[in-house]
Amino acid sequence: MLDLIKPLVVRNASKIVLAVADGLGGLPVEPGGPTELEAAATPNLDALVRANVCGLSLPVRPGITPGSGPGHLGLFGYDPVVHQIGRGVLEALGIDFDLGPNDVAARGNFCTVDAEGRITDRRAGRIANEPARAVVAKLKQIRIPGAEVFVEHVREYRFVLVLRGDPAGAAVADTDPGREGVRPLAPEAETPESEPTARLITQFIEQAAAILKDAPPANMVTLRGIARRPPVPSMAEVYGLKAGALAVYPMYRGLARLVGMTVLDPGRNWTEQCEALRRHWRDFDFFFLHYKYTDAAGEDGDFQRKVGRIEEFDAGFPQIVELGPDVLIVTGDHSTPAKLRSHSWHPVPVLLASDTCRPDLVERFGERPCLSGGLGQLEAKSLLPLALAHAGRLAKFGA
Amino acid sequence: MLDLIKPLVVRNASKIVLAVADGLGGLPVEPGGPTELEAAATPNLDALVRANVCGLSLPVRPGITPGSGPGHLGLFGYDPVVHQIGRGVLEALGIDFDLGPNDVAARGNFCTVDAEGRITDRRAGRIANEPARAVVAKLKQIRIPGAEVFVEHVREYRFVLVLRGDPAGAAVADTDPGREGVRPLAPEAETPESEPTARLITQFIEQAAAILKDAPPANMVTLRGIARRPPVPSMAEVYGLKAGALAVYPMYRGLARLVGMTVLDPGRNWTEQCEALRRHWRDFDFFFLHYKYTDAAGEDGDFQRKVGRIEEFDAGFPQIVELGPDVLIVTGDHSTPAKLRSHSWHPVPVLLASDTCRPDLVERFGERPCLSGGLGQLEAKSLLPLALAHAGRLAKFGA
Repeated sequence: MLDLIKPLVVRNASKIVLAVADGLGGLPVEPGGPTELEAAATPNLDALVRANVCGLSLPVRPGITPGSGPGHLGLFGYDPVVHQIGRGVLEALGIDFDLGPNDVAARGNFCTVDAEGRITDRRAGRIANEPARAVVAKLKQIRIPGAEVFVEHVREYRFVLVLRGDPAGAAVADTDPGREGVRPLAPEAETPESEPTARLITQFIEQAAAILKDAPPANMVTLRGIARRPPVPSMAEVYGLKAGALAVYPMYRGLARLVGMTVLDPGRNWTEQCEALRRHWRDFDFFFLHYKYTDAAGEDGDFQRKVGRIEEFDAGFPQIVELGPDVLIVTGDHSTPAKLRSHSWHPVPVLLASDTCRPDLVERFGERPCLSGGLGQLEAKSLLPLALAHAGRLAKFGA
Repeated sequence: MLDLIKPLVVRNASKIVLAVADGLGGLPVEPGGPTELEAAATPNLDALVRANVCGLSLPVRPGITPGSGPGHLGLFGYDPVVHQIGRGVLEALGIDFDLGPNDVAARGNFCTVDAEGRITDRRAGRIANEPARAVVAKLKQIRIPGAEVFVEHVREYRFVLVLRGDPAGAAVADTDPGREGVRPLAPEAETPESEPTARLITQFIEQAAAILKDAPPANMVTLRGIARRPPVPSMAEVYGLKAGALAVYPMYRGLARLVGMTVLDPGRNWTEQCEALRRHWRDFDFFFLHYKYTDAAGEDGDFQRKVGRIEEFDAGFPQIVELGPDVLIVTGDHSTPAKLRSHSWHPVPVLLASDTCRPDLVERFGERPCLSGGLGQLEAKSLLPLALAHAGRLAKFGA
C-alpha cells in the first residue's frame, strides 16, 4: 500500500488532525446496556458524526489485540504486521529515549540470584523506585570498547539498556529464562551478523554482575526484547506530510518520533493539548493528538471513570473544529473495555469529518451506531490514505 | 485470487451481464441533500434492488481514486494494483488502436523548441486538430529498420506512437522533461533488455525532429508513458467466459479488448446498446455494457444533468431484464461527484440480481441505502467471482 500511495502524493496547504482517545472502544457491562462511549454525553462528537461519516476501525486483523505500538502504527498508516517493534525499542520509547537508527535497545529486569547464580526472584523483590535508581546509577559506570552504553531506569525493577555502536545484527536471544531456579541464559546471537552485538551484551552483563554481586536483592540483570528500531519510512517520505505530535505520555511521543513526527510540547492535559494545537497550527500539515486517560480507566475496570474521561475528550472538540481542519479523524488505537480490564481486539468507533465526505445516517458516536456508518469496518491502516484523499493530497491512480 | 478461481471454473449456458454507468457514485452538494443517484428517479433499478442484493464497491483500495483503466480492470475481476496499464497503452486504447502483445506504445506531445532545441511551449500552442493531423501525416512517413511505426493523432497536441517489432523490454524513460526552458530528455533504457527499444525510439525522435524542424509551433515531439500492454490473462482463460463488450467510447472498447473480450458494434447510444445486447444474446456468456454520460456530467460539475443521465441509464433495464440474464450486476467503475468535478475514491453503489441471491432489506438504489446492503462494502475485483458463483460457474473449493 505504501508503494501504491507514494507516487500519488500531492502537497498542498490542507490540515489533517488525528485525535486518538487511547482504548476508546468498549463493551456493555450488563446485557442490553451501553458501552462506555454510548453511555457518555458527547454532544460535540455527535454533531460531527451527524454531518460527516463514521465506521469502525480494526486495529490489526480480526481477533488480534494490539499493544500501543501496533495500535498506533496502524493509525499512522503503516501495516503493524509488516512493521513490528521490538519490546526493547518500545521500552526505550516509553521513557522518551531518542533512539538512533543503529541503537540496540533491550528491556532489562533486576533480579536476585543465589550463590550459584540461579535466579531466586525474577523481579528483585519488586525493588522500589528509589533504590532501583541507585542501582541504575552504578550500571551507568559501565564502559564497553566499541559502543556507547546507556542505562536508564523505567520503574521498580525495570530498566532500559541501549548500546550505540557500529551497525550489526540485533537478533540476540533473551537472557531472561522466564522462570526461577535456573541461571540467566547467555545472550546468543541468532544470526551470524548479530555476533558482534551478542559480544557487546555479554560484556555488559559480565560487568553488571561484577558491580551488583554484593548488593541483593538487585544482584543480577536479565535482558529481553533486544532489538533495533524498525526501518519505518517517515510520514514525510511516504505521505509527504510534515507531522507534529501532541502527546503527554512518553510512549506515544516515541511512537510518533518513530515515524518521523516532530514531538511538540503538549502541555499537561487535554485542554492544554488543544491550545498547543492552535499555537502550532501554521507549522504542520498533520497533527496527532493523543488522549491517554480513557485507556487507563478501562485498564482499571472503571466503567464510570472511562465515561467521564470520554466526556472530557469530547469537550476539546469545539476548539479543534474552530481551527478548520480540512480532515479530522477521531478514533482510538484499540478497545479497552472496562469489563475486560485490558486491551481487546474489538473494532473501534471512528469518525471522519471533511467537506468531501459522503454523510451516512448515523446520529450518535458509539459502537452500535457506527455499524451503519459509511466507512464500514476497515483496517486502521486505511484511515491515513483516506485522510490524504479527503485532503486533496492523492492524485488519480492510473489514467 | 485468479489462481484460486481458475481451477474451480465450470462452464454452463448461463448469461452474465455487467452494466457499468461510468462515474456512477456521487456526493450531496448541500448538507443533508441527496447524491445524484439518490435524487434520480430509478424505478427499474429500485425494483431490482428490492428483489435482490446490493452494496458498495471499492474500486481499488480505500482513498485511491482510479482512472478509467484501474476502475474497469477491477470490475473485470483483476486486481488493478497488480495489473497496471501504462499511459501510452491507455492512450492507444483510447483511439481504438488494436495493440498487439509486443507493441510498445507511447503518448506523444507536439511541442515548440527554440533554435537551441530548448522547449518554449510544451503543448505547441495547443495546436488545433486540423493542423495537428497534417503534422501527424508527415510523421507517418517515418521508417525505422526493425520495427513497424504507427503514428496516430489523438486530439490537439496529443498523438500516439506505436512501435511493432521484436519483443524487447519497454522500460524507457519519458523524454518530456515536464517543464519549459530545457531540451527534451533522451529516451533512456531503464533496464538492459530495454536498450533495443530505446534505440528505436531515439531513431523515431531524430527523424521526427528533422521532419518538423522548420514548421513551428509543432517543431518537436516529446514522449511519455512508454509501455507495452500488461500481460493480463484473458477472461476466457481465467474465468472460462466468452465475453462481449458493448461500449460506445474507444477507451472502454480498448480496455475490454485488453482482457480478451470481443468488441461488438454498440450502436450510437444506450438504447441501441441494449438492442445490440439482444442481437448478440446467444453468442456470449458475459456482456459488458458501458454507459459513459454519467461520468461526463459529473466531470462538468453538472448535478442535474448527471441525475438525468442516471434516469436514462435506468430506462434501459426493462429491455435487459427481459432477456433473462442469470446474473445482472449494475455499478460504476468509480465515483464522479458533480461536487468535485472529477473522479473520486468514494465507494460505488452496486446491485447484483440473480435467482440465487440472498435479498437484503434495501428498497432504493443509492449510496446511503446501499450501506445496509447484503454485499457490504467489497473491492470491485470481488464482483466477478461473485457473478460466476451466482451463475453456477464455480465448483466447490476443497472437499
